[in-house]
Amino acid sequence: MNKEISELRQDPVSGDWVIISTGRAKRPESFKSRHVAASETPINLCPFENPQEHGNTIIKTYGAGDHGWAVQAVKNKFPIVSGENCGFEKRIGPYAKNDAAGHHEVVIFKDHRKSLAQLKTADVGLITGVFKERYLELEKLPCVNYILIMLNHGREAGASISHPHAQIMALPFTPSDIRRSLEGSKKYQAERGRCVHCDILAWELKEKKRIVFENDYFAALVPYAPKFSYEVRIFPKKHSSYFEEVGGNELNNFAEALRVSLAKIYNGLNNPSYNFFIHTPPVERDHEYDYYHWHLEINPRLGVWGGFELGTGGDVIDVDPDEAAEFLRSIKI
Amino acid sequence: MNKEISELRQDPVSGDWVIISTGRAKRPESFKSRHVAASETPINLCPFENPQEHGNTIIKTYGAGDHGWAVQAVKNKFPIVSGENCGFEKRIGPYAKNDAAGHHEVVIFKDHRKSLAQLKTADVGLITGVFKERYLELEKLPCVNYILIMLNHGREAGASISHPHAQIMALPFTPSDIRRSLEGSKKYQAERGRCVHCDILAWELKEKKRIVFENDYFAALVPYAPKFSYEVRIFPKKHSSYFEEVGGNELNNFAEALRVSLAKIYNGLNNPSYNFFIHTPPVERDHEYDYYHWHLEINPRLGVWGGFELGTGGDVIDVDPDEAAEFLRSIKI
Repeated sequence: MNKEISELRQDPVSGDWVIISTGRAKRPESFKSRHVAASETPINLCPFENPQEHGNTIIKTYGAGDHGWAVQAVKNKFPIVSGENCGFEKRIGPYAKNDAAGHHEVVIFKDHRKSLAQLKTADVGLITGVFKERYLELEKLPCVNYILIMLNHGREAGASISHPHAQIMALPFTPSDIRRSLEGSKKYQAERGRCVHCDILAWELKEKKRIVFENDYFAALVPYAPKFSYEVRIFPKKHSSYFEEVGGNELNNFAEALRVSLAKIYNGLNNPSYNFFIHTPPVERDHEYDYYHWHLEINPRLGVWGGFELGTGGDVIDVDPDEAAEFLRSIKI
Repeated sequence: MNKEISELRQDPVSGDWVIISTGRAKRPESFKSRHVAASETPINLCPFENPQEHGNTIIKTYGAGDHGWAVQAVKNKFPIVSGENCGFEKRIGPYAKNDAAGHHEVVIFKDHRKSLAQLKTADVGLITGVFKERYLELEKLPCVNYILIMLNHGREAGASISHPHAQIMALPFTPSDIRRSLEGSKKYQAERGRCVHCDILAWELKEKKRIVFENDYFAALVPYAPKFSYEVRIFPKKHSSYFEEVGGNELNNFAEALRVSLAKIYNGLNNPSYNFFIHTPPVERDHEYDYYHWHLEINPRLGVWGGFELGTGGDVIDVDPDEAAEFLRSIKI
């Protein structure tokens, strides 16, 4: 049993304070089944089992595999943004509005029951390659300001269909979370002449305490001031601003780091619900965001957000990040 | 049936963009029971039924009533901040930390089954009076930077005990949500010489479309760019910066606006889970935040937050705010 911690930690990027309070900690062994299996969409009703038959418009099919396909990119039937009819901001009294233009795609993985944690690295590499390819296509389209690549796993993480899939949203604005990460990085760069994430990585790779996994190009770690208990972030070790510029070898290393991190979470925490996102700059062509350092964040959804969590934008962290990293390192996959 | 809306709206305070997408709207009549009753703590096991017997340290008892008390302020047995041992920020490599000092209190309402929505205005007035009294006591203590007054109602809103209660957290830092509201208000004031919330209120009270309820001193409205479907915000009509300075008459009007808003949500949306918070400036004595306009936000928790919602800090709004306000106005209480 490690020491109890009750302290505030500041996120060096956003400036937000996080409460670490392990006095009422949930130990890993206390996690019950996260209901992922229980909430599974029955295979005969699954709209992603045969996407085309269920009226999904296929954008592209990847990797033939044994069953005819391995990954399919389709249009989301219930898009939250759509169309290319973006105009100027309109003002109404004290308010501003615009059209909800953009593109909302779903990246469906073939196997109804195998989440990313259970796939081979090569299959995860195919999927991360699809993310990059769709990014490069979508960034050419009008009205697209930010391309959000994310995955919801499990009911508590907002997955309404259990069949494994990711979502790509080409949005006409930058989500506030990303905007703040960009602003914090820019400020740190202006004040110290260095990339905040490079400084964090250098510290973490030297200390080793919170590293969960590393390979040649990527490091997966539990943040010093996480927003979720057992949160894992995956960074390219070398300063690299834009996800869509990740090269072939790096992409395989990224897929490995992602698969290993998700498998450790799956095995160690009894298949919890989680979200992951890629944090990368808005779509641009002028190297405006070279100060940024792209990365992926995995947010396990182990608790319900009450008022305090909504107001601070994160869990009360009830597991010491050092202990969370040590635990995840120890998990066999 | 009103028109369908698919647009972006910008929050005039934070600058965050919100997606309003009513194409897949949930209509009020579609809400099922929100499980609040089903998740009720049995009365014989309820630690708030006889707080003292269950080992809660009573701070103060208010309003004798028929059953010996009406409201009790107690110390939270599982505080997320505690003690007065706050020091200087310590730096460790690229990070900053501090002690999680502060005070975490619970304000327990007498009746196990009656939430604020079901109380009389006078009883709600007693409770809001306790909020103010505790605020004035807590702000005198060392290490206290922000006093968060909030309530979680229902399981989906993070209430672990169903017995109606609010929480008061005297924190050594300002939650990020409040910090951004302060920053946005300060910027607007600097740029235009006016209070952003006063401008919003003047517009809304003239338009009337999104007003849910008003009395002499307070207005309850659905925001133009809400963060939650059926969100309601309650503002003092006259510019007023600090909750703790609310006077006697105003406090009764505030209690009425709060009770009426919660009763409309309770009756109209089938007792959903919700959180509410008071947004007021950090503890201060120098009128530093006179530009701010305190208010209360009620956030119904009708959906599960997936990755998109986490990244933007709000629901995809699936109910037209005009329609939400019209609906809540129509609800008899």
